[in-house]
Amino acid sequence: MTQATNEYPVTGYAATSPDSGMAPFDFTRRGLRDDDVLIDITHCGICHSDLHTARNDWGRTTYPIVPGHEITGTVAAVGEAVTRHQVGDRVAIGCMVDSCKQCDHCKQGLEQYCKNGMVGTYGGTDRHDGSKTQGGYSNRIVCRDEFVLKVPAALDMADAAPLLCAGITTYSPLRNWKVGPGSKVAVAGLGGLGHMGVKFAAAMGAEVTVLSRTESKREDAAALGAHDFLITTDKDAMKAKSGYFDMVLNTIPVRHNVAPYLHLLKVDGAQVLVGMIDMMPELHTGLLLGRKILTGSGIGGIEETQEMLDFCAEKGITPEIEMIRMDEVNEAYDRMEESDVKYRFVIDMETLG
Amino acid sequence: MTQATNEYPVTGYAATSPDSGMAPFDFTRRGLRDDDVLIDITHCGICHSDLHTARNDWGRTTYPIVPGHEITGTVAAVGEAVTRHQVGDRVAIGCMVDSCKQCDHCKQGLEQYCKNGMVGTYGGTDRHDGSKTQGGYSNRIVCRDEFVLKVPAALDMADAAPLLCAGITTYSPLRNWKVGPGSKVAVAGLGGLGHMGVKFAAAMGAEVTVLSRTESKREDAAALGAHDFLITTDKDAMKAKSGYFDMVLNTIPVRHNVAPYLHLLKVDGAQVLVGMIDMMPELHTGLLLGRKILTGSGIGGIEETQEMLDFCAEKGITPEIEMIRMDEVNEAYDRMEESDVKYRFVIDMETLG
Repeated sequence: MTQATNEYPVTGYAATSPDSGMAPFDFTRRGLRDDDVLIDITHCGICHSDLHTARNDWGRTTYPIVPGHEITGTVAAVGEAVTRHQVGDRVAIGCMVDSCKQCDHCKQGLEQYCKNGMVGTYGGTDRHDGSKTQGGYSNRIVCRDEFVLKVPAALDMADAAPLLCAGITTYSPLRNWKVGPGSKVAVAGLGGLGHMGVKFAAAMGAEVTVLSRTESKREDAAALGAHDFLITTDKDAMKAKSGYFDMVLNTIPVRHNVAPYLHLLKVDGAQVLVGMIDMMPELHTGLLLGRKILTGSGIGGIEETQEMLDFCAEKGITPEIEMIRMDEVNEAYDRMEESDVKYRFVIDMETLG
Repeated sequence: MTQATNEYPVTGYAATSPDSGMAPFDFTRRGLRDDDVLIDITHCGICHSDLHTARNDWGRTTYPIVPGHEITGTVAAVGEAVTRHQVGDRVAIGCMVDSCKQCDHCKQGLEQYCKNGMVGTYGGTDRHDGSKTQGGYSNRIVCRDEFVLKVPAALDMADAAPLLCAGITTYSPLRNWKVGPGSKVAVAGLGGLGHMGVKFAAAMGAEVTVLSRTESKREDAAALGAHDFLITTDKDAMKAKSGYFDMVLNTIPVRHNVAPYLHLLKVDGAQVLVGMIDMMPELHTGLLLGRKILTGSGIGGIEETQEMLDFCAEKGITPEIEMIRMDEVNEAYDRMEESDVKYRFVIDMETLG
């Protein structure tokens, strides 16, 4: 594979230490390899992972780090062997920019579980030159063509951005567990992921219930398409729905006890964790013995991500977003920590200047 | 429904307090209802649950308690409406003696998950007269006909007894997770349940690996039909089998960390807990995010239990048993606590005297 020697100057926002906050940062992207696409970024959604990585909450961050893996933009140049994308195409990048494409999982379209390790969009290690990947809080990005998605014409570029992580993370498990008409789905956590889970499950024909600790989200849940609302601190209400649901999509992003949601499941029902990346508290195995399933799911494969984008275009599904300027990112992080966003911040990259 | 007024005098062994040990105990069984069967018990297997219940380890025992739910025997009398069984038939009773037979689960053949509560063979509450049920450490038992299984002619009555709990508890999840030729199954814990899991999985055509902390069980595993043996304390060996198995059948009966077994699973693979009834230690959700399934399973339904007995007869599958006299039960409990049994004690009820 040949690679152009000219690198691309890039401007973006990076964290330089756990408590630096986000600040302007200039760097370069590699010159195009044969199978690379150069993208002018128009929008980037803000995911909780961005915040955790910027602040090194998971202990794995190396600095400087440019977060962002909900990226939309326009193709600005393509490598010699690229046939899938053309200059001017509306495209998107999610949480992965590469994988081996050779292992069993990649061949099954499960690049996110690549046995040789998928390459994260930021903080990952390039498979060819060993350099660190940097994400979408920037004006351009270079990415292997097979990991570049097409944004359907019916989708606005700002709306499309959060679909690349919050969207696929909820869409994939709903498909995997065969949610459709007749399914009873409960969604725990009504944030960036949860609100997409409600929209997807309803669009797939399921009866959707939002689980919440308080009354405060009842109206929003209904507006998003939920058919019912269940307050998890109401013991009688919870007991009445014991054994009722085929699936609980648990999007809660912090450490918590998953036991109450296992009670809600039918025999062979599944609680799918997509938010919590933490130690799960102790759990009595009696809650699992009645063939209750506890599992998790991480994003989705490339083909499935494209399917999800096309599904959104066909069904008119879009995330609820709040557009911000690039220089408002620190304030956005603070507001996310207080759950003060309905439901996803999207950075307008034109404001990068 | 009519019920004969004459009760049946019964002799058995009971615990009368958590530290009483097991001792001779005389009591009565109800007179036959229209749909009841009276069984002269020939054999009863000893399950870990018997020991836990006798000693009130789960805090739910009321005394006196006659344990035993791996029961085989011969029909001695039948109620007026019984058509399934005749005097002289070789029959068996497992962990349930009744359920509502009306709810969704019962109608699906999942009486063990009866929404109105299945009636346990001992320590349960009769659905008609509210009396407490007493188990198989006794010379006769009365049971609703639909909960009485048929012992195929090819099965010895002593061999058949442990199938009613240890057998069905391992058979059911292997069937539920569609184990067959090409499946890779690991069995953790090589006791009463585990050794049946190995035999069943091998008979179903799977490649079977026994997981063990030490070398000590290697030969026994092979003799039972396992194709491979993996020492869980050998980090390199465990790493080499990461992502290898479709299913881990976890029969370990004590509190333990299930994380090492999740590493062994493929995407969509399932670890099924059938032994541990306890608080499961904390677990990092990252182990589940790659679509790894953690679940459990409890015994099996009546139809499936009959299917399992017939499968054993057809394939020549029998448990490894050690026959004991009724008055050796206390010693047997002590030996079980030291894992000193290969692999199931069966009481010869003729020794009850």
